[in-house]
Amino acid sequence: MRIACVLDVDYEDSEFKQPYDAFKEQGHQVTIVGLQSGKELKGKQGKVTTKAETGIDQARPEQFDALFIPGGYSPDHLRADRRMVTFTKAFFDAGKPVFAICHGPQLLITARVFKGPKMTAWKTIQDDLQLVGANVVDQEVVVDKNLVTSRQPSDIPAFIRESLKLLEKVPVGSR
Amino acid sequence: MRIACVLDVDYEDSEFKQPYDAFKEQGHQVTIVGLQSGKELKGKQGKVTTKAETGIDQARPEQFDALFIPGGYSPDHLRADRRMVTFTKAFFDAGKPVFAICHGPQLLITARVFKGPKMTAWKTIQDDLQLVGANVVDQEVVVDKNLVTSRQPSDIPAFIRESLKLLEKVPVGSR
Repeated sequence: MRIACVLDVDYEDSEFKQPYDAFKEQGHQVTIVGLQSGKELKGKQGKVTTKAETGIDQARPEQFDALFIPGGYSPDHLRADRRMVTFTKAFFDAGKPVFAICHGPQLLITARVFKGPKMTAWKTIQDDLQLVGANVVDQEVVVDKNLVTSRQPSDIPAFIRESLKLLEKVPVGSR
Repeated sequence: MRIACVLDVDYEDSEFKQPYDAFKEQGHQVTIVGLQSGKELKGKQGKVTTKAETGIDQARPEQFDALFIPGGYSPDHLRADRRMVTFTKAFFDAGKPVFAICHGPQLLITARVFKGPKMTAWKTIQDDLQLVGANVVDQEVVVDKNLVTSRQPSDIPAFIRESLKLLEKVPVGSR
């Protein structure tokens, strides 16, 4: 499966790197989509550095089967760009798998795709979600149809497990 | 006037330092209230480093005449601590001046004090505020009763000007 990983600087290092590695190990293709192609992207802990392989000006949702939104401060940067918001919304409209951890659901708030699916997030974002009328719970991983969400770095193993499980379920015809 | 400045790591350097210096220059007393007394607090740009002079376990709203909430990633850290949320709410309940810039209003969302006053914030937080039913506008500074808000570093001069003006207006009896 072709997974778009939307990423900007100051992401939570482990929330990007561990799922990213796990997806690749299972044979999935992961493309880092940033605000600008080639932009160097350092994690907030300074432990991981990567690069945007594609800029949002060139990325098309049709090129991907799933969307991965790591946490940290990255999602709040991404949602300041309308193209990232439109890109995110397209995955929901098409019913494609979306994996969001920690602050990742901030992008879902701005994209207006928070109504309906049961979800979780980092605790401060759980509060935002509750206030905007989302169906939010406090547990390590929540799977609702095509959406997988988790709260924090300690949830990563459950987040990876459920995301991989969902990728297995997507009908071959849609790949 | 005695101003409490609530601060945690990764604040926006200029949004803390410039108003902080301006308040002091005008003879106001500013105390940095952090999550833990003595904690070293470095800005996200790495340009400013300071220390929490008082921990939230010891700070009492009655000790202060006004509240200052700098932006950056700091407000999202602060609102994860219930004591900071209660501390913030007390200033609104008492009608004391509150100055919040950029991501500062995130703390107002969690403290449930966003309904009523006209305000502004960093553009992504403007969106959150709109969704939760706040009266939000997009301008460099908004003054509504005891609340002064601004959007970003370029608004700092207007933010300082209006905050100082409001401090002058507070009746001497309440000092």
